[in-house]
Amino acid sequence: MSDKKRRLKSTATKPANGFKSRLQPDSAILAILESLLASTRSACTSKTPTAKSLSDLNLSSTCREVTDLPPSSVRHAIEQTILTAAQSILSGRGFSFSVPSRASSNHLYVPELDRIVLRDKSSTRSFSSLPTVRKSAITARVLHLIHQLCLKNIHVTKRDLFYTDVKLFGDQSQSDTVLDDVSCMLGCTRNSLNVVASEKGVVVGRLVFTDDGDRIDCTKMGVGGKAIPPNIDRVGGMESDALFILLVEKDAAFMRLAEDRFYNRFPCIIVTAKGQPDVATRLFLKKMKMELRLPVLALVDSDPYGLKILSVYMCGSKNMSYDSGNLTTPDIKWLGVRPSDLDRYGVPEQCRLPMTDQDVKTGRDLLEEEFVKKNAGWVEELELMLRTRQKAEIQALSSFGFQYLSEVYLPLKIQQQDWL
Amino acid sequence: MSDKKRRLKSTATKPANGFKSRLQPDSAILAILESLLASTRSACTSKTPTAKSLSDLNLSSTCREVTDLPPSSVRHAIEQTILTAAQSILSGRGFSFSVPSRASSNHLYVPELDRIVLRDKSSTRSFSSLPTVRKSAITARVLHLIHQLCLKNIHVTKRDLFYTDVKLFGDQSQSDTVLDDVSCMLGCTRNSLNVVASEKGVVVGRLVFTDDGDRIDCTKMGVGGKAIPPNIDRVGGMESDALFILLVEKDAAFMRLAEDRFYNRFPCIIVTAKGQPDVATRLFLKKMKMELRLPVLALVDSDPYGLKILSVYMCGSKNMSYDSGNLTTPDIKWLGVRPSDLDRYGVPEQCRLPMTDQDVKTGRDLLEEEFVKKNAGWVEELELMLRTRQKAEIQALSSFGFQYLSEVYLPLKIQQQDWL
Repeated sequence: MSDKKRRLKSTATKPANGFKSRLQPDSAILAILESLLASTRSACTSKTPTAKSLSDLNLSSTCREVTDLPPSSVRHAIEQTILTAAQSILSGRGFSFSVPSRASSNHLYVPELDRIVLRDKSSTRSFSSLPTVRKSAITARVLHLIHQLCLKNIHVTKRDLFYTDVKLFGDQSQSDTVLDDVSCMLGCTRNSLNVVASEKGVVVGRLVFTDDGDRIDCTKMGVGGKAIPPNIDRVGGMESDALFILLVEKDAAFMRLAEDRFYNRFPCIIVTAKGQPDVATRLFLKKMKMELRLPVLALVDSDPYGLKILSVYMCGSKNMSYDSGNLTTPDIKWLGVRPSDLDRYGVPEQCRLPMTDQDVKTGRDLLEEEFVKKNAGWVEELELMLRTRQKAEIQALSSFGFQYLSEVYLPLKIQQQDWL
Repeated sequence: MSDKKRRLKSTATKPANGFKSRLQPDSAILAILESLLASTRSACTSKTPTAKSLSDLNLSSTCREVTDLPPSSVRHAIEQTILTAAQSILSGRGFSFSVPSRASSNHLYVPELDRIVLRDKSSTRSFSSLPTVRKSAITARVLHLIHQLCLKNIHVTKRDLFYTDVKLFGDQSQSDTVLDDVSCMLGCTRNSLNVVASEKGVVVGRLVFTDDGDRIDCTKMGVGGKAIPPNIDRVGGMESDALFILLVEKDAAFMRLAEDRFYNRFPCIIVTAKGQPDVATRLFLKKMKMELRLPVLALVDSDPYGLKILSVYMCGSKNMSYDSGNLTTPDIKWLGVRPSDLDRYGVPEQCRLPMTDQDVKTGRDLLEEEFVKKNAGWVEELELMLRTRQKAEIQALSSFGFQYLSEVYLPLKIQQQDWL
């Protein structure tokens, strides 16, 4: 090769800083994944008999959680609520609903469960009182609409629900709020109410499942992948020979891994919500983790927002804490991109971004969160991030070549069992 | 039925204002769709020999368009460009690129083509001139990166491209701009450069196609549908027994139609980009329309933004006018929700929203656009919207019942051939 050619070449594919040569054969990396899978499965089995629900912790009287209910049970619960109201009216006392409080003072992080739950504080929403008459009317109307949905067993969005009675609801935030109230009141997940969020997530890889009766083979979904269905109750029959689930924050990284068919080299299921996790993707991840008992490795940006996204998958959001048991996937391993990776992998200075004041604030807030505190490795990483005041996106790895992510970074991370 | 029960019932499902009774049997509606399909196909055939390209219109010397090129041709074009530059350097004249101008003064709406194209004005980007040295260096670097992508035939996002040389590019807008420049320079679509946008669209219904070699049957994609692949050049083998394509603006309406399996009652392909159309969805729609020769009916919000979305599908955006021939789908019929539908279907006042000043301005601007002007029906509808200053979302139809859209509104619109 002439000098000139070599120079050209060196700018073409930047030196992969020697990391590629450290890679062991795939069989060695696969063995690591197999042992991770085995330990995840044995943990699943051994933990099952220990305390994992509110009642096991003697918290069921002071905390509140909801469960998935079939449409017939939701209807029954609504009919009971309305019957109680009718009896109250007939006895001359008017009617009122007992609505669990979802104020932040009513939230509780339960370390044994590793998620946020709702305390059992309720308020009375009376029809015969001026401050609550409107809200109790809206509540009755929403109960009625949900009853219809469960009767027909069809699914609608929050927006559809709002439009069925704009005059009463006024604006969508009012029907949305009451929808969450109703979910708590009836003790069922919002999903059981047949009101779904719009879909955003995509899945590809070693997974077969049924979507509304159609059998979907996610190894045969090309580069585009399969859109995650908005209604999880129509998802079933999950089968997989994957060794792990790779949870990806960003669409671009998902695309890279799908095009490279990463899941054929290292059997896995790749899933992304394209940013902030939506309810459908969270439910789908939870279902995969539970039914297939697979370890979950996460690939997020090295910034406070990436960690925040992990926290939503793992511990839930405050807004839907009453449903945290159904929405959260415990024990997600933070594979990368972690703050310590930036120096370890020599991510060039110009590919790192300075943290904004808002980033720093978010990072400091995260350090106060229980779910971060209990993981010493996470605290260390977050402290490093705040000290260096640098962040980086997953795509920063492209500076070593477009396929560095799938060909070097991820295999090496797995080989080194470098997750927290 | 007791009086009480009847009262309950009447608030449950609001009177579908008699429209349901006007519906003819499905066979009659299917016959209408079949004749629409026949006329679309005969129009395709008869129009083919008439002027449909820039050269047919004798515009190829003054206007510029790009075409899809295979990776080998793109590589060849890049090598030619670099060879020319090298020769120029060796002869002591330094080097420069001739870059087509994409300024708005260089845009032209061609009525015969019904889309925006780029005029053939170019500027010289010289390496030896202070104002252009940086940009010509960036251009050379981008050419180099694209050459690599075409060599490996892999696809990356704009963001990935930016991260390969952050130091040179500075910020992503600079590599993005040059990417469009390079596309014009080489005379190929941005898609041919193997740089793709992230995917957003979903498709469901009577369509079979291959995504990177995997055969996808979109009637078997459950409620979630199939994510539209980011790289259209890996899409092939389209087959369909559909009578039309239903282009839907919103995710919620898509979900309703998918869950009701609307495509089984009226054979169609349902596609949505979930709002503002992305490049992948536009290319996919175009490909379906061209290969399957199906009529396209559009269901958008009744607001200026809905019409704007139609215009992007049909005529392209100014930003990518050089690529309009490949991105635009001509002859999309505006099925609904149209301003005149609001009164015709008795959409309740409270489900209509007042137009903001910005809405009105956008609407007035649209009235000035050539593609609106040439369709008298569209002008009339838009003038009605501006006169009443009312807009409405597709979901406003939920006020007549959750399934009104799929069971009454769409079948009736088709039965009445009520599209423009």
